[in-house]
Amino acid sequence: MKVAARAQVPPFAVMEVIAAANERRRAGHEVLNLCAGEPSGGTPEPVRRAAAAAVASATLGYTEALGMPALRAEIAEHYRRWYGIEVDPRRIAVTTGASGGFVLTFLTAFDAGDRVAVVRPGYPAYRNLLGALGCEVVDVPCGPEVRFQPTVEVLEAVVAEGGPIDGLVLAGPANPTGTLVEPAALDALAAWCSAHGVRLISDEIYHGITYATAAGSTLPGHGAGAPTAAPHLDAGAVVVGSFSKYWAMTGWRLGWLLLPPDLVAAVDALAGNLALCPPTLSQLAAVAAFSPESYAAADAAVAEYARSRAVVLDRVGDLGWRDPAPADGAFYVYADVSSSGLDSVTYCARLLDEAGVALTPGTDFDPVGGGAYVRLSFATTPDVVSAAVDRIAAWRARLG
Amino acid sequence: MKVAARAQVPPFAVMEVIAAANERRRAGHEVLNLCAGEPSGGTPEPVRRAAAAAVASATLGYTEALGMPALRAEIAEHYRRWYGIEVDPRRIAVTTGASGGFVLTFLTAFDAGDRVAVVRPGYPAYRNLLGALGCEVVDVPCGPEVRFQPTVEVLEAVVAEGGPIDGLVLAGPANPTGTLVEPAALDALAAWCSAHGVRLISDEIYHGITYATAAGSTLPGHGAGAPTAAPHLDAGAVVVGSFSKYWAMTGWRLGWLLLPPDLVAAVDALAGNLALCPPTLSQLAAVAAFSPESYAAADAAVAEYARSRAVVLDRVGDLGWRDPAPADGAFYVYADVSSSGLDSVTYCARLLDEAGVALTPGTDFDPVGGGAYVRLSFATTPDVVSAAVDRIAAWRARLG
Repeated sequence: MKVAARAQVPPFAVMEVIAAANERRRAGHEVLNLCAGEPSGGTPEPVRRAAAAAVASATLGYTEALGMPALRAEIAEHYRRWYGIEVDPRRIAVTTGASGGFVLTFLTAFDAGDRVAVVRPGYPAYRNLLGALGCEVVDVPCGPEVRFQPTVEVLEAVVAEGGPIDGLVLAGPANPTGTLVEPAALDALAAWCSAHGVRLISDEIYHGITYATAAGSTLPGHGAGAPTAAPHLDAGAVVVGSFSKYWAMTGWRLGWLLLPPDLVAAVDALAGNLALCPPTLSQLAAVAAFSPESYAAADAAVAEYARSRAVVLDRVGDLGWRDPAPADGAFYVYADVSSSGLDSVTYCARLLDEAGVALTPGTDFDPVGGGAYVRLSFATTPDVVSAAVDRIAAWRARLG
Repeated sequence: MKVAARAQVPPFAVMEVIAAANERRRAGHEVLNLCAGEPSGGTPEPVRRAAAAAVASATLGYTEALGMPALRAEIAEHYRRWYGIEVDPRRIAVTTGASGGFVLTFLTAFDAGDRVAVVRPGYPAYRNLLGALGCEVVDVPCGPEVRFQPTVEVLEAVVAEGGPIDGLVLAGPANPTGTLVEPAALDALAAWCSAHGVRLISDEIYHGITYATAAGSTLPGHGAGAPTAAPHLDAGAVVVGSFSKYWAMTGWRLGWLLLPPDLVAAVDALAGNLALCPPTLSQLAAVAAFSPESYAAADAAVAEYARSRAVVLDRVGDLGWRDPAPADGAFYVYADVSSSGLDSVTYCARLLDEAGVALTPGTDFDPVGGGAYVRLSFATTPDVVSAAVDRIAAWRARLG
């Protein structure tokens, strides 16, 4: 029987690494896992307490398709707190992870055949989802020369070469590079999109995890480190947020969208059909993510990531890695390993086999140039990262 | 800026009813809500205990995209227990509700332009999702004369009139009618689908909630009341299951797919892109749904639905309702209210306003003929249902 052509997405190379790592562990060898895109630490205690209370007492039936009003109100308050921005809670859709938000956004903003620009390297689900949903993925290669982020000039060149585009997916801090666009550059990109009828989708799921205050920001707190596209909602932009990374709530599957006025009705009508509602227990728990204690726990985790990050960046030379992406935020170092003479899939397979360290091959993020890159996730303790870096350096030295 | 044409799904009429009911409640009036498609009772205690334990101790990070192996193994065992069928756990995908399962199935089984037959009346998300995903929805009208379920003859007529079809969505027990197809009829439909290259998708989310043993079944237990398409996986069929209804876990957002061999790889590759994984806490909790205590709690709820069902069916004549669907399972009565002289949207609005009872207009399930029908959900106590029926009968008598 027929299998749909549209759903033939490539498997992730990291799955092979994870399978091999698990096999190695079962055989009794230690593996230092730096390939996971999630914090190794736990969800803040107030969130867990709220979940426990809900398990004991709440009905846990369906909520509103766009999420509980109390949670939407807390998210709005979060934008006031971190960015000094007023967001009408009616423009906030709570989603089943950021993943659920992307599906909703891609389906309501784009028709089949629409051309959507996606930065390469980038999170692979953007292009896989857009392709499965019938959109044409317009490749926007962004290397070290532009800090792995597009500029207005880059987009002008893309349009000049391939024709107009209908959408642009930006991410900051980006996966796998960690790179941010500066606030003025984000505003320029948003203005360009608005002027050209291009729907800007800003993936801000790593907000809160930043390591330097971006130029031009005068706001306090971690949120201030990354510029948000939230001021551009009226111009048609969509902001994608998540509880997964900053609050270490990956398995809870909860994110949100800030919607432009023209998409609210379409998202509202489609959300129930796609998902009925986001997980109720996660919603009840997530209200507690906005307590001072939860912010403090998340900030403490970020401070630890900062120490882990420094361990890697201080030793990049020892590893034989070149052109590491700036790693302004998120918890990744993306660097060129081609001086090893190995393509990144082989590099990762051998590194795991010969030194017990699991990294992600860049091919998952960049089908064209990713053979030269690996992604290291430092979302774990500085000790683990330090031990892994020691092993990588020794292994690399043995390679010659 | 452009909003996608594909995502323009109609809002549900029941949302107006719910909004009006909430307003009525805020104004201090009692509302008997029989429009919700979910149990009013709670999730079984073992599931809650497992969730509480997981909240206290587990990492709650991502799981495998297709779900935790332990949960997939339990689901396989459930098919052995209820139906006497062996299902390879590698063919089981745990999904974010049945909703997540439908999105995965529709994307991997059908390309844009494929023709998928959908029974009318039926759960509206089938047609809304298929339409948003670019498939052509082929209407299969099924009225009281065929117990609201298609037969091979009905499908032959559909194909003769409109040409070949690529898929068929069946549901049993169905929403909104509660109707089952007999085991032999299901086998005949599956054989017809297989012979014609038609992907059969069998929505079995209400399994476990049945009120009479279907003819031909000799298996014990509630599961036996409804025939499953699971024996037809090798012929290409997909089975959709859920924790939501029988185990009263709607807000936990957890369901599953039993996959035919040819869809396993495509679903595996796409699942991570669409959702990363189903909610981790829900997965850890759901393992406890298969304990004897959980089955007993769910069976007790079904026994209560049976009493509530009898209250409605005994009084259908008093209500002026005609042609009630057989209600073999699920927790709905779908009946013709046109003797009132009102279309169902007006009927529901006035019934709520004048008698404080909330029902769902049939237009949500049948855009053509639903103006004559309403759906009553009896997933609540017999006392509530009895009070509601009294009110409807008195209101109907006043109508004249």
